[in-house]
Amino acid sequence: MSVADPVANLQALIRCPSVTPAEGGALTALEAMLKPLGFTVERMVASEPGMPDIENLYARIGTDGPHLMFAGHTDVVPPGDEASWSHPPFAAAIADGELFGRGAVDMKGGIACFVAAVARHIEQHGTPKGSISFLITGDEEGPAVNGTTKLLKWATDKGEHWDACLVGEPTNPDVLGDMIKIGRRGSVSGKVTVHGVQGHAAYPHLADNAVRGALSLASALMDPPFDAGTPEFPATNLEVTTLDVGNPATNVVPEKATFAFNIRFNDTWTADTVKAEILRRLDEAAANNPLRPGRDATRYDITWAERPSHVFLTRNDALIGSLTASVESVTGKRPQLSTTGGTSDARFIKDYCPVVEFGLVGQTMHMVDERVAVADLETLTLIYGDFITRWFADAVVS
Amino acid sequence: MSVADPVANLQALIRCPSVTPAEGGALTALEAMLKPLGFTVERMVASEPGMPDIENLYARIGTDGPHLMFAGHTDVVPPGDEASWSHPPFAAAIADGELFGRGAVDMKGGIACFVAAVARHIEQHGTPKGSISFLITGDEEGPAVNGTTKLLKWATDKGEHWDACLVGEPTNPDVLGDMIKIGRRGSVSGKVTVHGVQGHAAYPHLADNAVRGALSLASALMDPPFDAGTPEFPATNLEVTTLDVGNPATNVVPEKATFAFNIRFNDTWTADTVKAEILRRLDEAAANNPLRPGRDATRYDITWAERPSHVFLTRNDALIGSLTASVESVTGKRPQLSTTGGTSDARFIKDYCPVVEFGLVGQTMHMVDERVAVADLETLTLIYGDFITRWFADAVVS
Ligand SMILES: [Zn+2]
Ligand SMILES: [Zn+2]
Repeated sequence: MSVADPVANLQALIRCPSVTPAEGGALTALEAMLKPLGFTVERMVASEPGMPDIENLYARIGTDGPHLMFAGHTDVVPPGDEASWSHPPFAAAIADGELFGRGAVDMKGGIACFVAAVARHIEQHGTPKGSISFLITGDEEGPAVNGTTKLLKWATDKGEHWDACLVGEPTNPDVLGDMIKIGRRGSVSGKVTVHGVQGHAAYPHLADNAVRGALSLASALMDPPFDAGTPEFPATNLEVTTLDVGNPATNVVPEKATFAFNIRFNDTWTADTVKAEILRRLDEAAANNPLRPGRDATRYDITWAERPSHVFLTRNDALIGSLTASVESVTGKRPQLSTTGGTSDARFIKDYCPVVEFGLVGQTMHMVDERVAVADLETLTLIYGDFITRWFADAVVS
Repeated sequence: MSVADPVANLQALIRCPSVTPAEGGALTALEAMLKPLGFTVERMVASEPGMPDIENLYARIGTDGPHLMFAGHTDVVPPGDEASWSHPPFAAAIADGELFGRGAVDMKGGIACFVAAVARHIEQHGTPKGSISFLITGDEEGPAVNGTTKLLKWATDKGEHWDACLVGEPTNPDVLGDMIKIGRRGSVSGKVTVHGVQGHAAYPHLADNAVRGALSLASALMDPPFDAGTPEFPATNLEVTTLDVGNPATNVVPEKATFAFNIRFNDTWTADTVKAEILRRLDEAAANNPLRPGRDATRYDITWAERPSHVFLTRNDALIGSLTASVESVTGKRPQLSTTGGTSDARFIKDYCPVVEFGLVGQTMHMVDERVAVADLETLTLIYGDFITRWFADAVVS
């Protein structure tokens, strides 16, 4: 088996059942691919009280700059109902030109292609003139506490420094070449508890229905819109994701209602300013609620989820330009530069070096029958290989 | 023990633990009080598939009109945490002039007083010139399916006919003499399920958050007010009593939300017209929802609870006038004629004869340490006795 073949690489990785937080043999398989190419491979185990230990991997070839990092994760989400899969989720079966398995596109496929691209680059050009490293975590699909953040700090403490990073997450909505991600919206979550006074539905004036408060506060968070979007980002959007009272008695007015929300915000905001706006809306709705005429302000409290995701936008013409040119030269498509979608570990990496994201087509990620077209694996390997060559040709050591 | 003593009657009834649907000996105890007075007592067991059988009691003295019915129930709500009671809930302990026990005011106390009043009336005046009957159910605090409705029909089928009814539920908010109930609002309950499309919080345009639909529909039911009240009735009021989504994942947009509501409506409406208004509000909010701009109408379905309670108002000067005069002559207070509060079995009786309600002070009903002032039991017995005399003096056989 040659590690220049992305299909073989991916099959080896999928056959390691690395359901988060388990390593499942996946990092060991990756280590076995990288060492023969000349990489120095280090395994780093991260710990946190009350959480499972997480294995991570950092590998580097070369000692000088410029230094290109490839980042990703080998952990995968659970397969769900295995009986619903057309082929077993960890068998890496190929059928009708598609390779089936959990992690095929998110994102063992991206890793398999980048390994193959590096192998071919070394074969053709010898050791790169600078350095290439893999920063691979086993905690991206989990709480992401013992993963990329700790690995970046650990490597930096050892003196590592990078000039650019490519994250191999699936970025293409429909076809390979659709989309490069050059930034991500921020994300903040919170939970609101509204307090009322319990009572009987026939004596509402003696009670204070917490539902009346919750309806008004929750609505105020979703209307009006926070902004209309910016040149680089879609509009900020907030979704109330649940609202729960749990009162089984039709004749009882409930004293408590809770709701949770998640906001995806663009570069109009920071995590702090968007939190302040949320509090302003809640206070305004609490003080002036048409569902509770003549009452004191609705009493509520709010808890914020730990670790907001900060918004970021990469502005690095060499990096974005090289990747765009590589995608276009291999696929014939000019990729859209996008900041849509969810968060990724790029939000941590952006504090260390410019970061962009490009990988496979994401349509089947996290789903039953996650799969990738075998042809896409070869195409992505060609794109990654072209990008390595271009980037090292253009890169300036920072 | 003389059944002319309401305190002894009430103690005997409280010591029967007739937690709904159990008879608990309470109807047997009542039968033992009524038979020596000359009542013909019948026990009627009502059945319904999937529900426990319920024992009920019908007793009559006299064969001619005018015919006065006293209606009530011996079943009680559960005592809750018995350790929280100052005195055991089925011990009927007397302390500091108060008699403690589950059912003391709701409404074994009312029954105990009416039995005592009848006993004294017979003692003083002999058998009444018309008829007096007791229509007592064991299913008022439960689903009320095997209780008063079936008992009324059963008795009517046997040829029974009544000219007026007094229900002995606790009607006084603070002091004996405060309030007679001469009608009740109607009550309708329903449950609405809002359907959306599940998705990821980062891709809200691909999803349709059911919470957005539910917030709008639920709010539309509570604002604006249905009416401002009528001369005899308070304003119609709707409470959304629960709203539940049950989505634990902050990054998932939920596809379903359900809420339940209960409306208490006055004589501006019937159960049918108030349902139609609810549907009109739901449809309007579904079609025009500021939380879902540019979307098709919110999809929802609604289920109505079985058996709405119909609104009613008693207009019978002889009945209301006799009771008002009795309350005023015994207590010195002119009682308010009210239609406030929840529903009662009077809503079934009103289809058979004019019905009014007067009983004890309701403050501790359904609570831990339910209790009645011993002095109130004597006062209520005097009121009931005065009412029996007045009503038979004024009554016209219908
Ligand atoms: Zn991923
Ligand atoms: Zn009652």
